[in-house]
Amino acid sequence: MIFFGGDYNPEQWPEEVLDEDVTLMRQAGVTIATVGVFSWSNLEPEPGRFEFGWLDRVLDRLHEGGIKVALATPTASPPPWFTLAHPEAMPVTADGVRLTHGSRDTYCVSAPAYRAAARTVAAKMAERYAHHPALAMWHVHNEYGTDCRCDFTAAAFRSWLQKKHGELDALNEAWTTAFWSQRYSDWAQILPPRATQYLPNPAHVLDFRRFLSDELLGGYIEQRDLLREANPEVPVTTNFVQGGWVSVDHARWAAEVDLVAVDHYPATAGYGAEVETAFGGDLARGWGGGSWLLMETAPNLVYTPGRMHAKEPGQLTRNSLSYLARGSRGAMYFQWRQPRGGAEMFHSALVPHAGPDSPVFRETIGLGRYLKALGKQTFGPIAAQVAVTWDAPSWWALQGAGLPSKQIDYAAAVQQAHRALYESGLATDFLFPGLDDFAERLRSYKMVIVPHLYLVSDETAGALRDFVAGGGHLVVDHLSGIADPAGRIRLGGYPGAFRDFLGVRVVEWRPLAPTGSIALDNGDRGLRWSERVETAGAETLVRYAGDVLAGAPAITHNRFGDGTAWYVSPGLDDGALRRLLDQVAAEAGVMPVLPGLPPKVEAVRRGDLLFLFNHGATPGQIHLPGPAHDAVTGREVPTSVTVQPGGSLTVRLG
Amino acid sequence: MIFFGGDYNPEQWPEEVLDEDVTLMRQAGVTIATVGVFSWSNLEPEPGRFEFGWLDRVLDRLHEGGIKVALATPTASPPPWFTLAHPEAMPVTADGVRLTHGSRDTYCVSAPAYRAAARTVAAKMAERYAHHPALAMWHVHNEYGTDCRCDFTAAAFRSWLQKKHGELDALNEAWTTAFWSQRYSDWAQILPPRATQYLPNPAHVLDFRRFLSDELLGGYIEQRDLLREANPEVPVTTNFVQGGWVSVDHARWAAEVDLVAVDHYPATAGYGAEVETAFGGDLARGWGGGSWLLMETAPNLVYTPGRMHAKEPGQLTRNSLSYLARGSRGAMYFQWRQPRGGAEMFHSALVPHAGPDSPVFRETIGLGRYLKALGKQTFGPIAAQVAVTWDAPSWWALQGAGLPSKQIDYAAAVQQAHRALYESGLATDFLFPGLDDFAERLRSYKMVIVPHLYLVSDETAGALRDFVAGGGHLVVDHLSGIADPAGRIRLGGYPGAFRDFLGVRVVEWRPLAPTGSIALDNGDRGLRWSERVETAGAETLVRYAGDVLAGAPAITHNRFGDGTAWYVSPGLDDGALRRLLDQVAAEAGVMPVLPGLPPKVEAVRRGDLLFLFNHGATPGQIHLPGPAHDAVTGREVPTSVTVQPGGSLTVRLG
Amino acid sequence: MIFFGGDYNPEQWPEEVLDEDVTLMRQAGVTIATVGVFSWSNLEPEPGRFEFGWLDRVLDRLHEGGIKVALATPTASPPPWFTLAHPEAMPVTADGVRLTHGSRDTYCVSAPAYRAAARTVAAKMAERYAHHPALAMWHVHNEYGTDCRCDFTAAAFRSWLQKKHGELDALNEAWTTAFWSQRYSDWAQILPPRATQYLPNPAHVLDFRRFLSDELLGGYIEQRDLLREANPEVPVTTNFVQGGWVSVDHARWAAEVDLVAVDHYPATAGYGAEVETAFGGDLARGWGGGSWLLMETAPNLVYTPGRMHAKEPGQLTRNSLSYLARGSRGAMYFQWRQPRGGAEMFHSALVPHAGPDSPVFRETIGLGRYLKALGKQTFGPIAAQVAVTWDAPSWWALQGAGLPSKQIDYAAAVQQAHRALYESGLATDFLFPGLDDFAERLRSYKMVIVPHLYLVSDETAGALRDFVAGGGHLVVDHLSGIADPAGRIRLGGYPGAFRDFLGVRVVEWRPLAPTGSIALDNGDRGLRWSERVETAGAETLVRYAGDVLAGAPAITHNRFGDGTAWYVSPGLDDGALRRLLDQVAAEAGVMPVLPGLPPKVEAVRRGDLLFLFNHGATPGQIHLPGPAHDAVTGREVPTSVTVQPGGSLTVRLG
Repeated sequence: MIFFGGDYNPEQWPEEVLDEDVTLMRQAGVTIATVGVFSWSNLEPEPGRFEFGWLDRVLDRLHEGGIKVALATPTASPPPWFTLAHPEAMPVTADGVRLTHGSRDTYCVSAPAYRAAARTVAAKMAERYAHHPALAMWHVHNEYGTDCRCDFTAAAFRSWLQKKHGELDALNEAWTTAFWSQRYSDWAQILPPRATQYLPNPAHVLDFRRFLSDELLGGYIEQRDLLREANPEVPVTTNFVQGGWVSVDHARWAAEVDLVAVDHYPATAGYGAEVETAFGGDLARGWGGGSWLLMETAPNLVYTPGRMHAKEPGQLTRNSLSYLARGSRGAMYFQWRQPRGGAEMFHSALVPHAGPDSPVFRETIGLGRYLKALGKQTFGPIAAQVAVTWDAPSWWALQGAGLPSKQIDYAAAVQQAHRALYESGLATDFLFPGLDDFAERLRSYKMVIVPHLYLVSDETAGALRDFVAGGGHLVVDHLSGIADPAGRIRLGGYPGAFRDFLGVRVVEWRPLAPTGSIALDNGDRGLRWSERVETAGAETLVRYAGDVLAGAPAITHNRFGDGTAWYVSPGLDDGALRRLLDQVAAEAGVMPVLPGLPPKVEAVRRGDLLFLFNHGATPGQIHLPGPAHDAVTGREVPTSVTVQPGGSLTVRLG
Repeated sequence: MIFFGGDYNPEQWPEEVLDEDVTLMRQAGVTIATVGVFSWSNLEPEPGRFEFGWLDRVLDRLHEGGIKVALATPTASPPPWFTLAHPEAMPVTADGVRLTHGSRDTYCVSAPAYRAAARTVAAKMAERYAHHPALAMWHVHNEYGTDCRCDFTAAAFRSWLQKKHGELDALNEAWTTAFWSQRYSDWAQILPPRATQYLPNPAHVLDFRRFLSDELLGGYIEQRDLLREANPEVPVTTNFVQGGWVSVDHARWAAEVDLVAVDHYPATAGYGAEVETAFGGDLARGWGGGSWLLMETAPNLVYTPGRMHAKEPGQLTRNSLSYLARGSRGAMYFQWRQPRGGAEMFHSALVPHAGPDSPVFRETIGLGRYLKALGKQTFGPIAAQVAVTWDAPSWWALQGAGLPSKQIDYAAAVQQAHRALYESGLATDFLFPGLDDFAERLRSYKMVIVPHLYLVSDETAGALRDFVAGGGHLVVDHLSGIADPAGRIRLGGYPGAFRDFLGVRVVEWRPLAPTGSIALDNGDRGLRWSERVETAGAETLVRYAGDVLAGAPAITHNRFGDGTAWYVSPGLDDGALRRLLDQVAAEAGVMPVLPGLPPKVEAVRRGDLLFLFNHGATPGQIHLPGPAHDAVTGREVPTSVTVQPGGSLTVRLG
Repeated sequence: MIFFGGDYNPEQWPEEVLDEDVTLMRQAGVTIATVGVFSWSNLEPEPGRFEFGWLDRVLDRLHEGGIKVALATPTASPPPWFTLAHPEAMPVTADGVRLTHGSRDTYCVSAPAYRAAARTVAAKMAERYAHHPALAMWHVHNEYGTDCRCDFTAAAFRSWLQKKHGELDALNEAWTTAFWSQRYSDWAQILPPRATQYLPNPAHVLDFRRFLSDELLGGYIEQRDLLREANPEVPVTTNFVQGGWVSVDHARWAAEVDLVAVDHYPATAGYGAEVETAFGGDLARGWGGGSWLLMETAPNLVYTPGRMHAKEPGQLTRNSLSYLARGSRGAMYFQWRQPRGGAEMFHSALVPHAGPDSPVFRETIGLGRYLKALGKQTFGPIAAQVAVTWDAPSWWALQGAGLPSKQIDYAAAVQQAHRALYESGLATDFLFPGLDDFAERLRSYKMVIVPHLYLVSDETAGALRDFVAGGGHLVVDHLSGIADPAGRIRLGGYPGAFRDFLGVRVVEWRPLAPTGSIALDNGDRGLRWSERVETAGAETLVRYAGDVLAGAPAITHNRFGDGTAWYVSPGLDDGALRRLLDQVAAEAGVMPVLPGLPPKVEAVRRGDLLFLFNHGATPGQIHLPGPAHDAVTGREVPTSVTVQPGGSLTVRLG
């Protein structure tokens, strides 16, 4: 069964809507509803007084309708009574402003009163619903990521630091506290990063983000264990939210959930949303080790900066299938029914304000039918020969103040690498350098891209070296291999961790102006970044052709052991990067999923299933690799098949 | 008598300046001076010790000079001693920052100590001056609008909410507190909107702004009643300040003042300032029910973003007459004499830093003479056949976070509608949907424009329906009729409140990108907004011609009863909107004040008086409707008369 | 000996690096190292426990290597233990946020605990090192400039105000507190400028900045006196930091240091950095009365907004010589060795991350050799016939809120005047109107430029009047001579202080829009500013030719006594200003250092030494005024000599 459904909040509606909703869900082929997110003030309207009746009715009614439930603990948003009783558990900003209720997510995960109240409500729910027949999975909390700088946080941070660094001198050394007279002589002197006079210590900030990820994880585990104990059969998860502000290292969290569940909201209108969808799906699959679940996306909107952008007809279907094609076990949305009020009343829904007589609900019905038929197929694994690295701590480090350029953007660098591979039709996985199995997972790829991997441990550097020596094709760009995991520069020339197998030594950075660029001798232009590269064994493929760098190496490659390591010094535009990666792929013997696709036509393969999408405005003709049948209708599909603009097609090969 | 004068602060000057000022005022024909604004620290230099001597001398001397006084209570700016004695009465921001003195307006209107101190000083002034022969009116406070989020405010807010909602459950329902776990179980849990984690509850924010308007009004009424009691003959008012940050619903306040007094500061240089002047004057007239007083404007500056823009020669005169033509009982300025120091020392004045030997004072003298002569005329009413709605709560609601587009701008939408009518020379009134007499006032118009009337009660919707059914011509744009007064969406398709008489149903919003536009099949382009409109009885006048909406209705009209209702789905540019409204006016039989005017030449009629302005750079020839005399010189004016660039002419017809 | 070296922080490195550093310093010809800045937490790791051993070793080892030491007291950054013990001594923002450690400069200079701790550590250092043979100078603190608004600051501010104003009524008068009800009836009511409702009182803000300069100076003097007492032979200084945010009036501070030491960081890439270098050097020379020391600049970076811009090869050398040519006694850098961690790990260094095998260190070695040879020469004085005024209080006043235009930029106006003179090759000094010797120093110049001298005392106005009357050539622009030192407008027409000798009267300001300009009748265009000027004796050189000002005077000159005073009403572009100043210089008989230089070739003369720089991209041919020898090689130099692009040459004339 494909999970198809979304967040459902009947507590916002008169009870009679429940019946209508179940009817509409059945009409739409919905198989699962996420219930209970943010329902704490309805479940426990006063401290210690629980009202489960309404939720009983919801679960029972859904069960009668044949709809499963992902039941959420409501701990992401404590009720107003909690604030009144425990002002000390409200989060505090770096400026010392104590937030209060009135939105959501106002709690400090290190505050004892919050943790106790969260355990209580989770335990009550476990007790009552752990064996409910509708229960398909537990959904702990919502989008962990809340930041706090209060004194509870300070105490927890200090404990975490003691565990990590052992001795205070080790911390002083790791944080280079000799700079600016920051040497600590007592653990009690250490605070979370708070408002200070000028630039903070980047190592301090970085460790705080690592701490916060672990501290939030502690909050999750506490609930998970309670729920597991009540019924070990029911899988437990929490929905991962992505964004530069989120201090959660999802790659590490993945080990603690029974199923990686991801909320994914592209932020680019038009074709960009498809590319983001592919990125989000591939990254989530990496976290999930091949399998994951799209827990939330917007049915009918892309939230671009400045406006909510309505999707085009067919796009809901195409996006949903794209997630499935990339390993998701379902397609779930925020949300089922668009609310009448509240802060997100304009977020999109399967049943919008206009009601079921609306384009989005009509498309939902069609999608439900499609997924029902498709659910009968077997979904094989995705086989990728290329991988890109993703590293949350490097992202965090490159968000700091005092960096050489404001154009540094870790996520953009990774997305650009992924986009280039996507455009060339190469199936792509993600790898996580901080994980124990990194070296092992590396071995299964022919080609690996390492964008802006700023922080790198000796182990990671060794694994990448071995990958190349063992015949791999590795592409490294500027700002990779620069620092150790504490953020201390690896000296002697950049990129300190990778100089040997790259065969280069960078002696000076020359970041470009926001509007600037630098000529390269192959006709391309360097963007954002340039630097003085000296080769030490590597062969120069492309040279800088402008500025004081004229004639100096810009792109190099180096035979090392049985493999090759490329170094890309300047930033490149999409076209130039794609041409370069195509060249690497050709050398590495990496092939696209389906060669010869028209522009904006995409093919994704899971086992024998081939998903075809036409994101363009003209019909796309596709040559299949052999005989195939429509995975939904079962009808034979001709080898040369046309997908209409905005359309999609799923076929089973063979 | 026309009120001509402005703010006068002799307490900032050596006493000998008073004599010079009275001489200059008489030279300029000044008839009234606003005295006492911000004089608290001079009137009560220490708690309980009053110094009235200087003010006695000012009032007496002005009286001797034949100049009337608008006497202000000084409560808008408590003295420094008040801060020291009552830190708890200083306002607190949403972030919890307690402000302090050093500027103006630092008080919390809900703080008991502030209210007591304000009553005391007002009572002392009433006692001393209520029967002073110079006293023409009381001017309470200054530009009410100060925001506070302190605990006094919280308590007052809760009382207000209890009065409004009765039961806590009604509030929970109205605010949709089931969303994000915000259900209140005790009134004590309710706070003003303060710093919170993420988006606030829009209904919470909206009610807070309504509360603040009422709370400030309470502060005003308390003083008004004291002053009235001392001498019921003297009218009491306060000067209304306008701006998106001001939580004052002036339409409602108008009932509590004896004369609507308005501060108006256009913010656009050049011709835009004239258009803003017309808008401000028409809106103020609406509040005043036909009559009002321009209490403040800048004599010689327009405060555009980034610089103070000096007016052109003649513009002071033209602007002043434009306010008079639109119903003002006078032309008053901030301020008489430009100060040597203080935060506003560069604000303009009738007597500038350069002294009376200056262009602005010379123009003042001329204007004074003109007004003296003009004051002998009878000023009849303005007869408008068109009205535009203005609704402060809708403005506030559309300033919220989480809306579908950042391009939504309530005030801009109303101003654009007014501007289109202004350009077409149509006399225009304003209507206020929240007032009890709305339905009644509606009846006197042939044509009504309803821009972005987002919040709408059943009563208002009914009144508009009746207006159309009774033969009226109504124009409704997108974002009108969307929500009930609590801000809850009216379901089933937008605009829920107006679907029936518009004969349309909107099933999906598609806001445009900031730089985007969408083709319409009449050659115009939609701006800012598009949406999927289905007709249900209406006739389609214009269709979308681009994007996925191609062919869908964009502008419709619907015969309903004896009238017609237009729906305008996209945003339009000024030209397109004007052409559309011209078409509606033609159907409605609405005629301009004076047909055939050259561009940038404006005609405004009050009874038999016709005010003519040439805001353009070339002479403007005007054909009068019949015989006329110059209202100032008494000379006969030819039927075809020329007004010079930058000039103005007032004639009496008949 | 030329001071050549920079900040050195061996406490950040393993002890063995010290030996390598001394070796490298000797290789590079380094003569001095600044040691101890920000070393407090290493010197006093716990309250009262001092660890001097490491610093002993550093000083001894440097001494053995023949390297002198500028020894810093570490008081700019108290250690974390200080925060824990004295939270009350942490600075507080205007919003009431108390900052904490985690960066640098977190202290309140008015807090007793901070002052005591600073005295203690400074006294300990004095005791231990005052007679160390390596000690060349004391370097107190670092870049004084930290702002605080706490209650200690409030108390100190009140004491300062009492001393300055004597009676409270004098303060009320000076601050125009009658405006907005700000009259103080007790000193206790006065606070530092803190968060307030709206615009602050500009006189309040201005006095606070003056106070802060004096208060910080008090902190400096306290340490200086301790150090002097320990060994009166050793000069004491502190490094001046520049920037609009810095409340330090360096012209006044200069009297309290034994040698003016300046940190200078240009912020413009390319040729702009050279122009800024000249400006910074000339200004520092003014403070130093002819002699000063470049204490810090970035060896290999210009910190432009948005990125760190690497210098071009040769630029380090050229910039360093430019400072020397302008009176610096040395060329010192932040810093010697680029740190591995900490907030400024990407700031540039003589020994970068890449190590000594790097372009920057190689250029350092060359520069060291050059300076060693050059150091044998005698450095004569710079003889300038032109001066520009610089006035910190006017800068501060023109940073206020509520000014007529956001384009007002004091520092930019002074820099533009200096740039015009620089481009014309005129040696330029700076003059400081607030100093006692201003009138006397004025007399030595033929030509003086007075940009935006907004605040002006009667004494200063008199001195400028006498300068003109005595035959001087004075150029005054708009916004000069407007207010008295308290910031009160001088009435009767701008510029009140200078009307008589300028022979003009300005009756109305008309600032231009950010993108606007106004035609002048000489073909140039006015920028940023226009105004209505009436002549009263002056002759009009250029008239406005557009807008309502067409025909009105724009640039005037006035014979007054034996001299001439020019008034420049509009802002001008660089070319127009340079042409105007060239004309003034021609009339004044001011000659360039070397006539006929090619573009971007610069000549600076100190006694018989002539420094030549080619900042351009083509070889620059220079005709020397007579026989000359290379100051480094001693070889004869032909009278017509070519300097290569990016190159420099120092010759001794005669």
